[in-house]
Amino acid sequence: MRVLILGGDGFCGWPTSLHLSALGHDVAIVDNLSRRKIDIELECESLTPIRPMHERLAAWKEVSGREVAFHYFDVAKDYQRLLDLIKEWEPHAIVHFAEQRAAPYSMKSSAHKRYTVDNNLNATNNVLAAVVESGLDIHIAHLGTMGVYGYGTAGMKIPEGYLRVKVETDDGAQVENEILYPANPGSIYHMTKTQDQLLFFFYNKNDKVRITDLHQGIVWGTQTKETRLDERLINRFDYDGDYGTVLNRFLMQAAVDYPLTVHGTGGQTRAFIHIQDTVRCIQIALENPPKPGDRVQIFNQMTETHRVRDLAQMIVDRTGAQIDYLPNPRNEADENDLHVRNDRFLALGLDPITLDEGLMEEVTGIARRYAQRADRSKIPCVSLWRAPAAAASQQAKVNQS
Amino acid sequence: MRVLILGGDGFCGWPTSLHLSALGHDVAIVDNLSRRKIDIELECESLTPIRPMHERLAAWKEVSGREVAFHYFDVAKDYQRLLDLIKEWEPHAIVHFAEQRAAPYSMKSSAHKRYTVDNNLNATNNVLAAVVESGLDIHIAHLGTMGVYGYGTAGMKIPEGYLRVKVETDDGAQVENEILYPANPGSIYHMTKTQDQLLFFFYNKNDKVRITDLHQGIVWGTQTKETRLDERLINRFDYDGDYGTVLNRFLMQAAVDYPLTVHGTGGQTRAFIHIQDTVRCIQIALENPPKPGDRVQIFNQMTETHRVRDLAQMIVDRTGAQIDYLPNPRNEADENDLHVRNDRFLALGLDPITLDEGLMEEVTGIARRYAQRADRSKIPCVSLWRAPAAAASQQAKVNQS
Repeated sequence: MRVLILGGDGFCGWPTSLHLSALGHDVAIVDNLSRRKIDIELECESLTPIRPMHERLAAWKEVSGREVAFHYFDVAKDYQRLLDLIKEWEPHAIVHFAEQRAAPYSMKSSAHKRYTVDNNLNATNNVLAAVVESGLDIHIAHLGTMGVYGYGTAGMKIPEGYLRVKVETDDGAQVENEILYPANPGSIYHMTKTQDQLLFFFYNKNDKVRITDLHQGIVWGTQTKETRLDERLINRFDYDGDYGTVLNRFLMQAAVDYPLTVHGTGGQTRAFIHIQDTVRCIQIALENPPKPGDRVQIFNQMTETHRVRDLAQMIVDRTGAQIDYLPNPRNEADENDLHVRNDRFLALGLDPITLDEGLMEEVTGIARRYAQRADRSKIPCVSLWRAPAAAASQQAKVNQS
Repeated sequence: MRVLILGGDGFCGWPTSLHLSALGHDVAIVDNLSRRKIDIELECESLTPIRPMHERLAAWKEVSGREVAFHYFDVAKDYQRLLDLIKEWEPHAIVHFAEQRAAPYSMKSSAHKRYTVDNNLNATNNVLAAVVESGLDIHIAHLGTMGVYGYGTAGMKIPEGYLRVKVETDDGAQVENEILYPANPGSIYHMTKTQDQLLFFFYNKNDKVRITDLHQGIVWGTQTKETRLDERLINRFDYDGDYGTVLNRFLMQAAVDYPLTVHGTGGQTRAFIHIQDTVRCIQIALENPPKPGDRVQIFNQMTETHRVRDLAQMIVDRTGAQIDYLPNPRNEADENDLHVRNDRFLALGLDPITLDEGLMEEVTGIARRYAQRADRSKIPCVSLWRAPAAAASQQAKVNQS
């Protein structure tokens, strides 16, 4: 099938593009290279030496014999170009990764909050409006986040998107209903993903757009079967305080003898998935689209849950690294449980890569191999969820009243 | 207190500004005059002869002796100007009307969908980000809509914002919780208001911003005590298919001997409020802000519910008008019940104006008086909730599969 990949230069988008191309699908990428431009802003680079897009694509053609097209434009800003491309190329599916995806980055300042809201919501709305305007029946698969659920579960596994609730009516009867799981975002970034859910809900209800929303856990690992084929195909690896995800940061810290940065007690439980399983999940989602008339299909795209301090300990055990307990910049509970259903992907054949099998390959194959490229000054998290000045003044006012 | 009114030139914003000024508050208006510019786009004007902003404000000063400041800029686009104004003027409260507010307009085309999403969400996010960045403790009152709830109620009065639900845990126990009422928007416009709710939820949780969200019914009527004082202060009255609200359209149609346009069976039940009660409700909301640390405070701002065909009949009885039953351009149920709680405003002293008392004054005082200004060609609704071409092609695909 023809698959249009929005954000196909990014950490998940690139390996997904290659995976789908390797399977024989006709793949075209749209990207404004915003992630590389943010590297320039943050004065930090991928630990792995990622190559420019045209070099990547030439290497892929050499290795696989397959062509992947690349369109350089901004999905959130250039609606007409997106619409024209959809009408001309008539993709069967669109995979939508074209959003700012780091929670700490979204909280750095007002400008970062505003960019994240403006970019993410206009991107998603443009994709939906363009599909409706094209009149084509295109399946949209969107990368969402487990973070839409928040992290409080009262003795209950988090279901896949929808929650069964009972409501008492005015005459004392009980009505049962299935609702979208109540949103509880923990950052501006996560909030935009909960707002995306409402865009999907509305366009699905009003225009019957077929949509799959993938609530993904924290991705770890770097390489997939395809990105390993040639060093020019290597995927990005972020280790900085904004874009680096917790496990990849620990791996890199261990490799450069930097104490593992655990925030708060490390009692936060999070859901994880290996990048190889991410690309498999997207393949499975595309092979199993919702039927016409179906509501938005939601999968939890994760394979394991762990407490942050247990992850750190796992790496300490393997590498002898030290742990550094730091104040938590986020507004969140110190400790939480998290139990998540992921029955749907398992039923469709996903055979997860576990931390046990993949972890040391990452340490040696990626983190140690490219350790000399690391800038240690970029490791600390500097984004605060509340500005210190605002927080203090707020507190002063609370005390006065 | 100092009150900044964003969107203070609009149908609700203008009478609110005068009402609060008359009460002795220090009022400043921000508006980009977008509603007047949309009049130009739609080639249709307010039935009432509204005056330019500076003439309005000069007349208000003549009549009341009070000054209202006016700042001409776009809240959704000019963040720095908004922030500077907040920091310099230090308002105690901000009333946020600065959004595109017509459901049919939001559904006219992709461009109108995109404008509504871009404008409404960036406006709300800018207000919240600016309040946080200012470090000031400002109460934000926002004009939302009853449409966030959708129109299905299973034997239950719609509560004020939050719904008590029971959830079964994995071990069979029942957990009770209060959640934001599940959103069910019926248009792009209504969808942006459900997305606003998530912005409010997040900034309230993360930054302790004090917020009141007013879920308003359909406003009817034109004048308030203050706008009646001088013809130069007159409020707008929209009768066109995009911005005209159902009851005001019926009043105007009766006045110009045009058959009342009832869509579908007219069995849709809607919530209503008179514009005079709107401005009273906003006053009450400002006088009763949430306390520091409170969750978002939500009021249902409506006073009566009626079926559309019953409203039409009420006007037929008074004026002898005819009714024309037309196809419904919206994707919605033909008939629905609607029961709404509005205990909170009633408890705080709202004494509602009923349709019975206000209706004929509107017919004679406004609709008949300015009937010669009407352009009959602007009366029909032309926005379709689904493009005919897209709908047909979708149907063809459904039939094939």
